[in-house]
Amino acid sequence: MGWGDLGVYGEPSRETPNLDRMAAEGMLFPNFYSANPLCSPSRAALLTGRLPIRNGFYTTNGHARNAYTPQEIVGGIPAEERLLPELLKGAGYASKIVGKWHLGHRPQFHPLKRGFDEWFGSPNCHFGPYDNRARPNIPVYRDWEMVGRYYEEFPINLKTGEANLTQVYVQVTDAWAGRARGGRPPGRQAGQCLPQEALDFVRRQHAARRPFFLYWAVDATHAPVYASRPFLGTSRRGRYGDAVREIDDSVGKILSLLRDLRIAEDTFVFFTSDNGAALISAPKQGGSNGPFLCGKQTTFEGGMREPAIVWWPGRVPAGQVSHQLGSVMDLFTTSLSLAGLAPPSDRVIDGLDLLPAMLWGQLTDRPVFYYRGNTLMAATLGQYKAHFWTWTNSWEEFRQGIDFCPGQNVSGVTTHTQEDHTELPLVFHLGRDPGERFPLSFASPEYLHALRGLTLAVRQHQETLVPGQPQLNVCNRAVMNWAPPGCEKLGKCLTPPESVPEKCSWPH
Amino acid sequence: MGWGDLGVYGEPSRETPNLDRMAAEGMLFPNFYSANPLCSPSRAALLTGRLPIRNGFYTTNGHARNAYTPQEIVGGIPAEERLLPELLKGAGYASKIVGKWHLGHRPQFHPLKRGFDEWFGSPNCHFGPYDNRARPNIPVYRDWEMVGRYYEEFPINLKTGEANLTQVYVQVTDAWAGRARGGRPPGRQAGQCLPQEALDFVRRQHAARRPFFLYWAVDATHAPVYASRPFLGTSRRGRYGDAVREIDDSVGKILSLLRDLRIAEDTFVFFTSDNGAALISAPKQGGSNGPFLCGKQTTFEGGMREPAIVWWPGRVPAGQVSHQLGSVMDLFTTSLSLAGLAPPSDRVIDGLDLLPAMLWGQLTDRPVFYYRGNTLMAATLGQYKAHFWTWTNSWEEFRQGIDFCPGQNVSGVTTHTQEDHTELPLVFHLGRDPGERFPLSFASPEYLHALRGLTLAVRQHQETLVPGQPQLNVCNRAVMNWAPPGCEKLGKCLTPPESVPEKCSWPH
Repeated sequence: MGWGDLGVYGEPSRETPNLDRMAAEGMLFPNFYSANPLCSPSRAALLTGRLPIRNGFYTTNGHARNAYTPQEIVGGIPAEERLLPELLKGAGYASKIVGKWHLGHRPQFHPLKRGFDEWFGSPNCHFGPYDNRARPNIPVYRDWEMVGRYYEEFPINLKTGEANLTQVYVQVTDAWAGRARGGRPPGRQAGQCLPQEALDFVRRQHAARRPFFLYWAVDATHAPVYASRPFLGTSRRGRYGDAVREIDDSVGKILSLLRDLRIAEDTFVFFTSDNGAALISAPKQGGSNGPFLCGKQTTFEGGMREPAIVWWPGRVPAGQVSHQLGSVMDLFTTSLSLAGLAPPSDRVIDGLDLLPAMLWGQLTDRPVFYYRGNTLMAATLGQYKAHFWTWTNSWEEFRQGIDFCPGQNVSGVTTHTQEDHTELPLVFHLGRDPGERFPLSFASPEYLHALRGLTLAVRQHQETLVPGQPQLNVCNRAVMNWAPPGCEKLGKCLTPPESVPEKCSWPH
Repeated sequence: MGWGDLGVYGEPSRETPNLDRMAAEGMLFPNFYSANPLCSPSRAALLTGRLPIRNGFYTTNGHARNAYTPQEIVGGIPAEERLLPELLKGAGYASKIVGKWHLGHRPQFHPLKRGFDEWFGSPNCHFGPYDNRARPNIPVYRDWEMVGRYYEEFPINLKTGEANLTQVYVQVTDAWAGRARGGRPPGRQAGQCLPQEALDFVRRQHAARRPFFLYWAVDATHAPVYASRPFLGTSRRGRYGDAVREIDDSVGKILSLLRDLRIAEDTFVFFTSDNGAALISAPKQGGSNGPFLCGKQTTFEGGMREPAIVWWPGRVPAGQVSHQLGSVMDLFTTSLSLAGLAPPSDRVIDGLDLLPAMLWGQLTDRPVFYYRGNTLMAATLGQYKAHFWTWTNSWEEFRQGIDFCPGQNVSGVTTHTQEDHTELPLVFHLGRDPGERFPLSFASPEYLHALRGLTLAVRQHQETLVPGQPQLNVCNRAVMNWAPPGCEKLGKCLTPPESVPEKCSWPH
């Protein structure tokens, strides 16, 4: 989802009343960033509080090469990483992930082995449908076992965009209401117990008086974009807007439940996204990055600046805006802080505790780093951003019509070759020029001043940096989701092909 | 000012708390348009409720030629046009214009001859300084007479951007507070009575129990951009942001006064702008058009879509968004409706009464027309916009560095030659694609459906169109502001050169 997809961030159709109200009742962060312009690394950073370059969620298969976890991926979140739900156990928290995991799908990476107590969702993106011969369809798990596969028990109609998944992710009641007109609810066919997802988890923890961490990782705005029938065709923005509306509606349901249970003042809620809106699939399946340059896959602002709202009635003052530079990694540190826990002291943690910003309006000077793969592309400090490398995508891809910056072309900035500016970085003032269209003059005192601060921050970062073992280098068709646990109960086990490790490659 | 300059429209620095609050207490129009991408024609349309092509505020000196009223202009608002303050007199309203008039500066066009009872401001843009030999400095009027000139009694420091004008326009008290550190207040030197502008006008009408119309036409965000000392350097967005902050602050003062006088529920307040943010002066003096394409001077959305907020506590429901397609011309008809008056019936009025949209959420299907000069460049109906002509500016200007769309380049759309698409218009869906980056496929059923409606609306418009006499064709250096009324009292009369009528030309 993109920065510009919410009404409160200026989307002209203004179809996110629940998120907008969440901002009005909470605090908005206009300068909040993902840790990577792509999903898997960003989510790995969220749960570890560490940059992908540290936690291993990158590839060295190419320079500045974005990478995620396709079905063929051999790697996943390393055992040495400490994940947020693992740590929260120390304070008695129950944790659930609803939606996309994306940190590795082989058994050793299973989220219930990494601190989560419950899971409903899938290990990979909802790409498909596949023929179950060359590639298996992606499984959907309930806790330890699969309960079906996308395009089978969990249908996604690529033509109409209909899928019930966001409803399933938020609660069973609405899912069934939504499905009532169209057929049987997903999951029932497989004879599983009824889905009792986000809302039910909250209700159960509340009844048990147990503190909880819900990681609600919906993916309806990720191509192929989907929405359930009650939302399909209701947006002014097309199918992507339908998906946004359904997510917004679900957020409203979650916040309402917290109010109804009278635990709103005891519950810290944060809304953000893992990367900017993908513009290659625009306009039908692409969202909005507002005034920012380019989109997902790039280290321009459109690729990594995210919507971000904190909601904690009675604690975080209502209707505030914080200009603190924030990151999804901060949610790791902040969540630990809320639970009275300290982050691990035996490793570098990139996340900042945002509570001083949220509760008392404090601002902390801190850099934001923009990586593609193992390459530091850019850094922001204060209002200044320096690009050490510029690249959108290759000429070869661009000629095939793959465009990360449609309709945008900043000469010398949105380059289709990897341009090395490390000796003389391009510097932008993000306040005056959020669209990164007007590099500061190299000769200006402002440039020299800005670069001095940025260079120092980058030097400190790089001098202490110990890159983690890259996890996203090796792929193998044999490790795909042929026979996930539970497949035998459903009669859905498939036979893997011969094991042939190879270098991963990604469509872009 | 641009659509994207307000926090409520997504400006990342979010420095317009007063306008944002105005929206939260009122109704926001995300789909509201100026009548022209340039100032004079847009303001003429606002006060007449008629497109510039009807009221004469256009030129035929060139095809699709934007035009405004420089000092040399011979023409002005025609005597036959009925202006809003003239009509409001019929309901006993007192009217004041504070700020830029821009509908002609020769004596017959004086705003006090066109229905206004009071004026404080200037007839032209605050360009300068001039040498008073080749060109006179622009006068500032109090009612019938000039009280000084820009860069003389009303200083604008082009280097620092300091000018006190917005403070003078809003109220004397603050202006003096602002000036106290820097010198004597403007106007005092000239021995005039103290400026008693927007707030004072409201107070006096309230005391006299007289209904009033205040046309608060500030221009601080128009290049050369300015702010008063207390605001200078306070924005995260540079000088342009300082100007926006000061305007926002002034709006807050006006709304506060209405509340303090307990007339908020009897006062209809509307905030909008006359054209999109100018991007040629970006980033230091250029604003934001949010996600929209290009800026001022163009008929892309960035040139004509405007921020628009109505505030009428107790009458217009709070916190609403209306997707009504609106226009500055609607303020003419809506204002008359509020005063219990009907618009003139002897001519075509383009303005719509927005009260049904504001009070009861009604939506009226109506087209929006985008003109440059006498050329219909584009039209919007519902969510669909058709471009009959595309043009940003000429290659000749572009090569000189004049760019209306910096960093944006939509192939075949942001053209530097005037491209005629009247046979096969480019059509965009503004909901899915507010940035006008993805023209619909000519072969698609959606294109054919959209074009059918648009073609009908355009045909109806063109069949009934009687263009007014173009007012912006002829210029003459002899008519410049050499000796405005009142100059003799100030000893500021200058001698005009010989009268030489010629075709007007504009820098772009």
